Amino acid sequence: MTQRQWRVAVAGLGTVGAGLVDLISRRPAFAPAGTPVQITAVSARSRSRPRPADISTLPWFDDPVAMAASPDNDIFVELIGGSDGPAKAAVEAALRAGKAVVTANKALIAEHGRELAVLAEANGAPLLFEAAVMGGTPAVKMLREAMVGDEVISVAGILNGTSNYILSEMETSGRGFAEVLAEAKQLGYAEADPSFDVGGIDAAHKISILAALAFGCAPAYAVAEIEGIENIELLDIRLAKDLGYRIKLLASAVRVGDGVSVRVNPALTPLDHPLARTGGALNALFIEGRGIGRIFIQGPGAGAGPTAAAVAADIADVITGALRPVFQRPAGSLATLTPLDPAHAVGRAYLRLIVRDQPGVIAAVSETLAESGVSIDSFLQKSGEDTGRVPIVLTTHTVAAEVLEQAVRRMAALPALLEAPRLIRIAPI
Amino acid sequence: MTQRQWRVAVAGLGTVGAGLVDLISRRPAFAPAGTPVQITAVSARSRSRPRPADISTLPWFDDPVAMAASPDNDIFVELIGGSDGPAKAAVEAALRAGKAVVTANKALIAEHGRELAVLAEANGAPLLFEAAVMGGTPAVKMLREAMVGDEVISVAGILNGTSNYILSEMETSGRGFAEVLAEAKQLGYAEADPSFDVGGIDAAHKISILAALAFGCAPAYAVAEIEGIENIELLDIRLAKDLGYRIKLLASAVRVGDGVSVRVNPALTPLDHPLARTGGALNALFIEGRGIGRIFIQGPGAGAGPTAAAVAADIADVITGALRPVFQRPAGSLATLTPLDPAHAVGRAYLRLIVRDQPGVIAAVSETLAESGVSIDSFLQKSGEDTGRVPIVLTTHTVAAEVLEQAVRRMAALPALLEAPRLIRIAPI
Repeated sequence: MTQRQWRVAVAGLGTVGAGLVDLISRRPAFAPAGTPVQITAVSARSRSRPRPADISTLPWFDDPVAMAASPDNDIFVELIGGSDGPAKAAVEAALRAGKAVVTANKALIAEHGRELAVLAEANGAPLLFEAAVMGGTPAVKMLREAMVGDEVISVAGILNGTSNYILSEMETSGRGFAEVLAEAKQLGYAEADPSFDVGGIDAAHKISILAALAFGCAPAYAVAEIEGIENIELLDIRLAKDLGYRIKLLASAVRVGDGVSVRVNPALTPLDHPLARTGGALNALFIEGRGIGRIFIQGPGAGAGPTAAAVAADIADVITGALRPVFQRPAGSLATLTPLDPAHAVGRAYLRLIVRDQPGVIAAVSETLAESGVSIDSFLQKSGEDTGRVPIVLTTHTVAAEVLEQAVRRMAALPALLEAPRLIRIAPI
Repeated sequence: MTQRQWRVAVAGLGTVGAGLVDLISRRPAFAPAGTPVQITAVSARSRSRPRPADISTLPWFDDPVAMAASPDNDIFVELIGGSDGPAKAAVEAALRAGKAVVTANKALIAEHGRELAVLAEANGAPLLFEAAVMGGTPAVKMLREAMVGDEVISVAGILNGTSNYILSEMETSGRGFAEVLAEAKQLGYAEADPSFDVGGIDAAHKISILAALAFGCAPAYAVAEIEGIENIELLDIRLAKDLGYRIKLLASAVRVGDGVSVRVNPALTPLDHPLARTGGALNALFIEGRGIGRIFIQGPGAGAGPTAAAVAADIADVITGALRPVFQRPAGSLATLTPLDPAHAVGRAYLRLIVRDQPGVIAAVSETLAESGVSIDSFLQKSGEDTGRVPIVLTTHTVAAEVLEQAVRRMAALPALLEAPRLIRIAPI
């Protein structure tokens, strides 16, 4: 750790990359330990595209893989994105060269974490990814470093700012999903292809990474149960609120016996719960440890400033010379996550039906539930306002997912039902 | 970092020390990087006192300083407490021996942080103190490591669980300060001498440490402005609630121009603010960075489990081999904190008066404020219920502390006043 200076190569010069170039050029001595940092190489798809930071004097590489392998830099920062392709090839090249890698790429770590950890540890190269989860809010550092003296039971929170923004906006503006999404795209809050965000994939990548750190296993994105917010209707947001809940896209990883449940799904959270009160593009996370109890963190989950600061914090960590396994154990001994059979998951649920306005419907619905073994906690029938369509909403007591799904199938067959029943979990918090 | 095992000496075997002995004996391989940890020496005031952990087989030292200097251990854990005396002597001896020191001692770090940092860095010895602030909630790690890429503007929060518990209990039970404190002592929630907690000294130690990490200066406990909760009356808790606020003991460190305001004081927080919603013995902290924005963390601030886990996390950090300055800069270049002149502090305030029930009093009060240049935001007169004593409560717009204090002095001289005016700040959040 006695170098003259640390030479950083940055691949990918979008808003985060440009923010990092700007941060380091303004404060090259930001890392408390060690010598100054300098950006000594950059690579992106287009050299001439206008950017908020001046890159004209920085050495340029057309090929990020060549830059990653070059002996003229010490730390490789990957901000290209994507689980495969040039991002993966460049990270592998840098690790093979024994170079520290800092990345904001959640898809890459969630889908190839184990093989990259093996490569990093075989080459004595740190592989850090604070910016991959919750932007500037240090969820990765907390799980990787602050919880090591404890046994983590669960992590659960709001990890996708775009979905959270859309749900908040639907509630406050009274507009439907499609309309709010279209506006979010126009404003730049949502990508042109928003399916990663609203489909829950982005949150699933992030919770897979947190689960690996929490439970000392390899990231297991492939086994995550994923449901997005595309089917959340304004009606459900309003009915949930009548019952004292707000619908959030919840990402969670929970130890259950020998297995782990890793999932992303819309969930009802009580209105006065900190997660229900996490609005707009904020992210928030509960970490529960056996000895420590519950820790809550909340902060900006994206954006150039926060994400660039998280990358800079990782660079500072590299400079301290700290050597840690990439996940909580040496890569060779990482456990394989045993997914909980989702059919055996238990919990409470919200069920919304649209029924024909005629006598005997409530009796039919409650009989069907009783026969299926589902116990009702609360029941609310709204006025159909002369449309002939009556919304019925109910919450259940704790029930196994398979029992509930069977009840919903039976319910769907009732002649009075005008739409498929809508089932949303109630957050177990 | 290729040792056979890490040998840890623990001085102080209260609940935290016993918790640590228990944690390490159950999970000697808790540190993800490196070899197992073993407790190889212990010291406390009494060897025979009953403890939740078995120490009978552990090598015993009567003198913690001799244990700290002994070559038979690598990491010295100081859990004795107190800013001076054996705790300081033992930490100094360990650092002089080039040994890593982990401590939960906020008084020691807040009052002697600079000289200990100089000693640590001169001997190449890490000095870590995560457990000194917010117990198991990693406030120190966040400021020391996660914020290095950003410029911290302020840190503010609830850092003393005992005071927070007493304020919460006064509100929910409708009992006065003295009664709730007496009960808290009986239940073991407050020390026999509670003045460190309810007098704001403990919170001031903690915010001094966080200020040093946030602003790259030496801890400056001596310049902190401190006001405790001893004079908070149930009446004020109730009147504040009528106005939409909850009274909390707020610890804050804020950059203002070239100076820093470091203070602990009771403050009104809006009822729906996360700090107002931090009840019981919880701790909570806002960290605001220029690039990152605001991060909020909340969790248990004390207790054997959380605090022992924080000590264990520091031990794991030592094992990674990370070398960082003790505060954000090398000890020799730590800035001296320039305190803001409290007379120039500006903010909003709550003012409560008890006046004689007679005509013209409100006019006299509002004239006095107007003449002093204090602008009123809201005004509430409660019924005197035939006691002849009428509470008047008002909130001000932003005003300089010296202007407000002058107004209060003039007000105190009004013939209709039956008690000294009660002034409480409104949190600038």
